[in-house]
Amino acid sequence: MAQGTLLYAQSGGVTAVINATASAVIQTARARRVKVLAARNGILGALAEDLIDTSREPLAAIRALAHTPGGAFGSCRVKLKSLEADRARYERLLDVLRAHDVRYFLYNGGNDSADTALKVSRLAAAFDYPLACIGVPKTVDNDLAVTDCCPGFGSAAKYTAVSVREAALDVAAMAETSTKVFVYEAMGRHAGWLAAAAGLAGDGRDQAPHLILFPERPYDEADFLARVKATVERVGYCVVVASEGIQTAEGRFVADAGGGKDSFGHTQLGGVASFLAGRVKDALGLKVHWTLPDYLQRSARHLASATDLDQAQAVGRKAVEYALAGMNAVMPVIVRSADAPYRWKIEAAPLEKVANHEKKMPAGFIRRDGYGITAAARRYLEPLVRGEAPPPYGRDGLPKYVSLKNVSVKRKLPHWTG
Amino acid sequence: MAQGTLLYAQSGGVTAVINATASAVIQTARARRVKVLAARNGILGALAEDLIDTSREPLAAIRALAHTPGGAFGSCRVKLKSLEADRARYERLLDVLRAHDVRYFLYNGGNDSADTALKVSRLAAAFDYPLACIGVPKTVDNDLAVTDCCPGFGSAAKYTAVSVREAALDVAAMAETSTKVFVYEAMGRHAGWLAAAAGLAGDGRDQAPHLILFPERPYDEADFLARVKATVERVGYCVVVASEGIQTAEGRFVADAGGGKDSFGHTQLGGVASFLAGRVKDALGLKVHWTLPDYLQRSARHLASATDLDQAQAVGRKAVEYALAGMNAVMPVIVRSADAPYRWKIEAAPLEKVANHEKKMPAGFIRRDGYGITAAARRYLEPLVRGEAPPPYGRDGLPKYVSLKNVSVKRKLPHWTG
Repeated sequence: MAQGTLLYAQSGGVTAVINATASAVIQTARARRVKVLAARNGILGALAEDLIDTSREPLAAIRALAHTPGGAFGSCRVKLKSLEADRARYERLLDVLRAHDVRYFLYNGGNDSADTALKVSRLAAAFDYPLACIGVPKTVDNDLAVTDCCPGFGSAAKYTAVSVREAALDVAAMAETSTKVFVYEAMGRHAGWLAAAAGLAGDGRDQAPHLILFPERPYDEADFLARVKATVERVGYCVVVASEGIQTAEGRFVADAGGGKDSFGHTQLGGVASFLAGRVKDALGLKVHWTLPDYLQRSARHLASATDLDQAQAVGRKAVEYALAGMNAVMPVIVRSADAPYRWKIEAAPLEKVANHEKKMPAGFIRRDGYGITAAARRYLEPLVRGEAPPPYGRDGLPKYVSLKNVSVKRKLPHWTG
Repeated sequence: MAQGTLLYAQSGGVTAVINATASAVIQTARARRVKVLAARNGILGALAEDLIDTSREPLAAIRALAHTPGGAFGSCRVKLKSLEADRARYERLLDVLRAHDVRYFLYNGGNDSADTALKVSRLAAAFDYPLACIGVPKTVDNDLAVTDCCPGFGSAAKYTAVSVREAALDVAAMAETSTKVFVYEAMGRHAGWLAAAAGLAGDGRDQAPHLILFPERPYDEADFLARVKATVERVGYCVVVASEGIQTAEGRFVADAGGGKDSFGHTQLGGVASFLAGRVKDALGLKVHWTLPDYLQRSARHLASATDLDQAQAVGRKAVEYALAGMNAVMPVIVRSADAPYRWKIEAAPLEKVANHEKKMPAGFIRRDGYGITAAARRYLEPLVRGEAPPPYGRDGLPKYVSLKNVSVKRKLPHWTG
């Protein structure tokens, strides 16, 4: 039987399926009789020795995590600096792990988290403390290196494609006398993965979305407006999907062009969709609506992709297996062996290759005119949104999401104020 | 066998289930061997003699309408004026009906549509033209008189409650280091029905949504901000749902307070959520996110309520039965006979009682403090969001929504330019 405790923590923006990874981690460890603690609010809880005893949760609750969005133990946006600059915090982390006999540290997050896990692993080695550090992938941004895709992205991508398809039918029905242009703002500050996923909603130049604006291409207002106008004249309406991260040729974020202060000195919170809608209204005089789904797109567990859910659980299971097998400083990544039929497997990748790299969208995924996706992008994206995995619904018509007890573990170390 | 043709038209904002009503109308009429034409873009198509021959659609396509959002034949935002002021258009409408031997006119819409159907019926009687005019209810605003609820509302209500529950889990997980306040903007310019439906997402003062802003209550900024602050201090975060129609005590729409022009003279499109988010940021200094689902909330067929779908189909079937039975100037309305277990039936109501009335939300549905819903509101709302009715999904992971051929009927009248 394995010895020592496993500590699991969630980091960065949560997703519709990060709890499915947590569910798989805890169930796999329980089956191997390994005790699982979770850090409250990610690395903050690990540093503060604010730990949760997952053994106090019944199996039904742990299973229900697989269909519950959000981050059940709390996550955080905290990036540890380099080993040198943040040495006190890394050492404190090691103290906490040692105090609770943690021999397996699973950090579920993005690039920064992989980097943190890697540094903790190096420090443990330097102190001769036997510790298996495993990074577990997660991000709706789909920007992790090495892995073919990131758990969380497929569900957000499915939400995006479905929402755009549905809203487009609404706009099409009303365009004769009402809204002619509709703008959908997709997450993606640096890469247009989610905007690209919207492209799955239709095919051909007359099907919505008619125009996709990618952060990978400079925003050219005159060209954009001319295309909106031409689309409305040809199709009768125009559905635009814009990535929040689009920039002008000078490298200025379009989102920052809106906003500012109103005449009362109040802050105006802008955003790309509201800015573009304003430009369409001013320059073309067309009736326009826009949507900013914001967190809805990354928490829509009700519309999760079955592929994404499978992969989120698979990386959780494999992370535990790697740890118990004595592997260290690795991440279970998704390897695609075929597009159609879609085949994938999990392999271990060194954290070194993942940490602090950012995967860009291949140039070959964006159509030559810059406003749509290519067949290659469809081949890549389509399997990721495939399959439905709805949560159970209650008699009240709402999904039955679980709320854990999250019982705290008794502290063993003095209070830390680092 | 019945004689004459049935003309069906869709009017006003479309919903996730208005096509389910259309599907039921066409199937019921086909079973009775009555020919069904549809007007393209609602009353506009009827006036322009731009009609669609639904007999050219295979049964499978008509059945698939039941799971397809939007308005399959096109809708419009056009309100006919009084019989006196718009007499030429009413008479033209009668000419078109007569030219195509239309003996049954089914108008699927809200208050204005009920009024139009009523006037057409009176005019037909005055001209001794035998015509059965039936209003068929539809609106996400839930503001039709007489009927207990409106087809379209239940699905939008379910979307709202589910989305708020999901986003709240996201915010809860991140609040320690990231967003502390989240604002969701619900449709509802005059009545807070959809904002109220968000209240189903939680129960008790510590569950999201923590604050609901209704158009029925004046917006008091100081009180609102104090409650946001208190909620964040008590719970750690605060989820706000705001109806787009909230007004100050002076009767000014809060949505109009945002917007205006930026320093480049560009139009700033505001909205309630972005305005409130700006105030929270300025006055409380808290990190805030907001969402504007816009058309997504009324087109989300993927998350339709089974109750709503049943009712949308039932009013369609009954409308045809009423028409063929020779009833005139009536609307099939939903009558609730019990909350638990929920029981309802369809009855005929005179269009006179529906036309131009607006159903307000009962005062007893809003909590005494003005920021939440009562037990009575829950008893009313809960059955309406109950049950799931997902569309079929394709191998590509997206809902299989149907696109009709919409073959035009040959014109019989001279071109009309009224």
